Amino acid sequence: MIKKYRIGNPIETFAVLKELKIEKELPEYIKIVDNKINISLNDSDIVYGLGQAVRGINKRGYKYISNTSDDPVHTEDKGSLYAAHNYIMIDSFKKFGIFIDTPSKVTFDLGYTDINKIEISFEYNDYDLYLIEASSLVDILKEFRELIGKSYLPPKWAFGYGQSRWSYFNKEEVKEVVKKHRENNIPLDMVYLDIDYMKDYKDFTIDNEKFSDFESFVKEMKKENIRLIPIIDAGVKIEKGYDVYEEGVKNSYFLTKENGDNIVCGVWPGDVHFPDFLNENVREWFGKKYQFLIDKGIEGFWNDMNEPAIFYTKDRLNEVLDKITEYKGTNLDIHKFFEFKDRVLTLSNNNEDYKLMYHNYLGKRYRHDIVHNLYGYNMTKAAGEYFNKINKEILMFSRSSYIGAHRYGGIWQGDNSSWWSHLKLNMDMSVNLNMIGFIFNGADLGGFGSNCTPDLMQRWLQFGIFTPLMRNHSALGTRRQEVYEFSNMEKLRDIIEFRYSILDYIYDETKKAVENNTMYLRPLAFDYEKDLLTREITDQILVGDSIMIAPIYEQNKKGRYVYLPEDMKMLKVKSKNDIKEEVLKKGHHYIEVNLDEFLIFVRKGKTFTLKNGGQSVDSMDSSIFREF
Amino acid sequence: MIKKYRIGNPIETFAVLKELKIEKELPEYIKIVDNKINISLNDSDIVYGLGQAVRGINKRGYKYISNTSDDPVHTEDKGSLYAAHNYIMIDSFKKFGIFIDTPSKVTFDLGYTDINKIEISFEYNDYDLYLIEASSLVDILKEFRELIGKSYLPPKWAFGYGQSRWSYFNKEEVKEVVKKHRENNIPLDMVYLDIDYMKDYKDFTIDNEKFSDFESFVKEMKKENIRLIPIIDAGVKIEKGYDVYEEGVKNSYFLTKENGDNIVCGVWPGDVHFPDFLNENVREWFGKKYQFLIDKGIEGFWNDMNEPAIFYTKDRLNEVLDKITEYKGTNLDIHKFFEFKDRVLTLSNNNEDYKLMYHNYLGKRYRHDIVHNLYGYNMTKAAGEYFNKINKEILMFSRSSYIGAHRYGGIWQGDNSSWWSHLKLNMDMSVNLNMIGFIFNGADLGGFGSNCTPDLMQRWLQFGIFTPLMRNHSALGTRRQEVYEFSNMEKLRDIIEFRYSILDYIYDETKKAVENNTMYLRPLAFDYEKDLLTREITDQILVGDSIMIAPIYEQNKKGRYVYLPEDMKMLKVKSKNDIKEEVLKKGHHYIEVNLDEFLIFVRKGKTFTLKNGGQSVDSMDSSIFREF
Repeated sequence: MIKKYRIGNPIETFAVLKELKIEKELPEYIKIVDNKINISLNDSDIVYGLGQAVRGINKRGYKYISNTSDDPVHTEDKGSLYAAHNYIMIDSFKKFGIFIDTPSKVTFDLGYTDINKIEISFEYNDYDLYLIEASSLVDILKEFRELIGKSYLPPKWAFGYGQSRWSYFNKEEVKEVVKKHRENNIPLDMVYLDIDYMKDYKDFTIDNEKFSDFESFVKEMKKENIRLIPIIDAGVKIEKGYDVYEEGVKNSYFLTKENGDNIVCGVWPGDVHFPDFLNENVREWFGKKYQFLIDKGIEGFWNDMNEPAIFYTKDRLNEVLDKITEYKGTNLDIHKFFEFKDRVLTLSNNNEDYKLMYHNYLGKRYRHDIVHNLYGYNMTKAAGEYFNKINKEILMFSRSSYIGAHRYGGIWQGDNSSWWSHLKLNMDMSVNLNMIGFIFNGADLGGFGSNCTPDLMQRWLQFGIFTPLMRNHSALGTRRQEVYEFSNMEKLRDIIEFRYSILDYIYDETKKAVENNTMYLRPLAFDYEKDLLTREITDQILVGDSIMIAPIYEQNKKGRYVYLPEDMKMLKVKSKNDIKEEVLKKGHHYIEVNLDEFLIFVRKGKTFTLKNGGQSVDSMDSSIFREF
Repeated sequence: MIKKYRIGNPIETFAVLKELKIEKELPEYIKIVDNKINISLNDSDIVYGLGQAVRGINKRGYKYISNTSDDPVHTEDKGSLYAAHNYIMIDSFKKFGIFIDTPSKVTFDLGYTDINKIEISFEYNDYDLYLIEASSLVDILKEFRELIGKSYLPPKWAFGYGQSRWSYFNKEEVKEVVKKHRENNIPLDMVYLDIDYMKDYKDFTIDNEKFSDFESFVKEMKKENIRLIPIIDAGVKIEKGYDVYEEGVKNSYFLTKENGDNIVCGVWPGDVHFPDFLNENVREWFGKKYQFLIDKGIEGFWNDMNEPAIFYTKDRLNEVLDKITEYKGTNLDIHKFFEFKDRVLTLSNNNEDYKLMYHNYLGKRYRHDIVHNLYGYNMTKAAGEYFNKINKEILMFSRSSYIGAHRYGGIWQGDNSSWWSHLKLNMDMSVNLNMIGFIFNGADLGGFGSNCTPDLMQRWLQFGIFTPLMRNHSALGTRRQEVYEFSNMEKLRDIIEFRYSILDYIYDETKKAVENNTMYLRPLAFDYEKDLLTREITDQILVGDSIMIAPIYEQNKKGRYVYLPEDMKMLKVKSKNDIKEEVLKKGHHYIEVNLDEFLIFVRKGKTFTLKNGGQSVDSMDSSIFREF
């Protein structure tokens, strides 16, 4: 049962689709003291939730801050990532879920200050609190998901394997990537275009030198069953004569300063304005702009830099450049040196800058920080509303999000790194994102930042074949990460080929999760609630209805422990053609898993079917290859 | 058997104490091609070594660069930390160790480029290669350790618990820390003084306002069985009238620029010169300076910033400050913006700056980068040589090191963070440091950077009580980390109390490792070489002769798997007074371990003795409390 409570005078977010009456009396296990929500925890309680956040599936023992941020270093001390997903679910003597609906900053102290206490605090004390009680975690979640509406499901081809890099700088590079995949028989469905396909980083433009005759190029690729997926950024370059800029200025579509001038910020193109996506007229206008690329044959997009990420505001940049000259000729001791360095480092994504911008939202003027967490969500909504209007199945996923955005697109897990700990984070975050309805999600396989190693790529793909979004993406300046670049290419190919053998399963099970408001990837404890040990086992994941996986996520590991809550059939997979089967009993097992092997467990009484697969979704053979 | 090979014309490092004749013919499994050492690996081979480095005990699958660096963010992509420990040991069809003795940069590609290939490459192609072959890992290690000489062992009181913070800013703060420990019955032996005890960050000075009448204060603390351990930095403040500066200038003891002028760099005090520790006259001079503090009753020191860490060189700083003004009024697109930011970020610890400095070493002039990795080592040597000369038992540990430094002091593991992954890194690094002779070492318990949580402190102490150096240290701006600051203080106290019950064991076993050239902390595979499964189990550690530990190093874990290579007696410890005993059979076990519990396994046929312990080493009761 869901109950709604209202504190203060919250701003509408459109996260929730149902109208509920407002209750007065909170149950006694939730107290509001000094504007903070307090909940006591027992030693054995688990706190699930928060969607995109660092650390494990059980979020206890840290302080998380919902404040959409572009922070590319996802170490475990980071309280904020790109999203604001204010949902937690407590598995205690009583099971309940809490959704805090508010567009501004929320702090979840989940046993950080006091080990057995949850304290939720607010920058602005206006919010709706939804409390969901039911007898099982699955039921609570179902009610929550019904409250926030059905998740986005992309076209089936988007479940193929995609290759990305910041950047493929011209057509020839893209063609080379496709050629190398095809000639090595590595399946591929998509090549992603990062910021360099645009002319001077201007949204809805093409660099006609490096990507000349773009429309024909899109067609040519499509013939090879490759779709190109361009990136769209939030900021609009300030440039006389550039239509998006000119229209935005003319119609007052951009965020302003307090004095009403459009605020000047810096992103890829240098000086930009930011569209006021919260305004429905702006969304309608910006959404239509995607048609420029749809007309050229494009069927998918990724929305980026929409936290919004800001390299600088022009005013602060000028101030800092002035101040810096004053250091010349002085002795820079520790205090002065770090002051100097901080001035430069805090130019980017400075929370103070968010207080200098203004929106025009639902007929009122709001300072940006008050509605900050809705920005990326509404950029995705701009696109999604337009795609719905033209009734086209378009791939759409975003970096920043808020609950509600899950109805318009998926998300990727942001700018992770080629770290083994980020393979584990990928696993944990996938589960937490499934909870809150972002079923279509995935991380940059192999890691975006820093350099990937052959074995990390291998282990990461072994997990990545189970995530709906399966994309290999890497950053400028890092080691090339296309699978054919590695000495173990053949092993990597075997794994990707296997994806296409189970792609129907992944698509069907994802679709079911969308339609039934369930989780496609989930912890054991959700299905085996009575087996208390499953609450401890967070590195085994249920994938759809039939299988469980137990990935290896540590370097140089050649085996791992697996706990089976019931008898299961273990598949030790090297490739589609090399699978060893064995039935294992309920209980603990130590299992050898060499680098070229991964484990799938078929649950008792379930079947799991491999198809013939192929080199792309459009060309694959869905007849049965083998059944387990 | 050890064989020595000489390539080029290497510079003496004094890492090795034995004279060996130079061999010509390398065995066929080691090839030198294009100035690179090549070794092929089999899938199952393990590569141990490298001492202070990121990642696990098995170093395979990454590229490590021996290049002493002050990098405070120990993420797994960092190739260099504070030390240069050029020793690796390969457990293959053949077992062998390799020590590369050279003072400049060495790159160890251990399966990064090609998964089954080691490639060792050099910035300067002059080095001695020592190859050690024996039938067991233990024998190889023993021979290596005999080659490099006996490890440093500090006085026994240094095995007590120490509390540190950057910084305790005055006497009153230090007294408060001591008082709070004593009144809460938390044992304590040392309080560390970070940079703020000095006057304007000048080595061998005292801030006479904040630490007035320092000598009496040291005595007063000593009466409470507390020793104060001040930090010493490498850089010497440029200040007219400051004796260390004046003497250094007068005697040409500082690093110079190519033109012979003393090079001006920036560290805590602002502009500094760096002593040329490689020069024996400078070491003698600097070593004597410690007497200033010894005269005040000080018995221990930590040497810091000796990679050397450089915030800036004055010349580059001025250049950058000039350049930065040119950005004003221009459009900072991606290229220009990151160029601007990089100019500021690369001011610190810039490898190019190391090419601007010159040493006077063994009668010759050397550019710093050629002998870079010897700098911190020789700072420690300066202190150690002096302490030996005055025949005093002094606690000494350093941040930067090279093999050879282990004869003069211990090291700490550098500026880690309050991350669970750094608790695991602490475990792995401790083992790798034991290999190369840095037996006396430890990490900042609870983590130096970022904010510690109560549960992390608890789990970290549960491991930390087994490390010879047991110090809680945290950085400016982070959450207070003294154990009495946490809601679970009593549990934390129980753990520290337990340390004092096993302190005799830890001291005795450390001493044995020093005397016998063995490892105090070591992986299972070293003692159970015939049990191949132990090669996989890297998160259980043998501690001295009698016990094995199996720490919990992941948040919210309430149990773990343990593999026993033979029957062992398991102790589940809550406190000295609350220990559950159980004999477990050889094999795999899943064991529940609540947050307030940790595991000790007493090996078959061995005994393990708890003493009564106490509140400090000087006051503790070494009579037997309980035997297992």
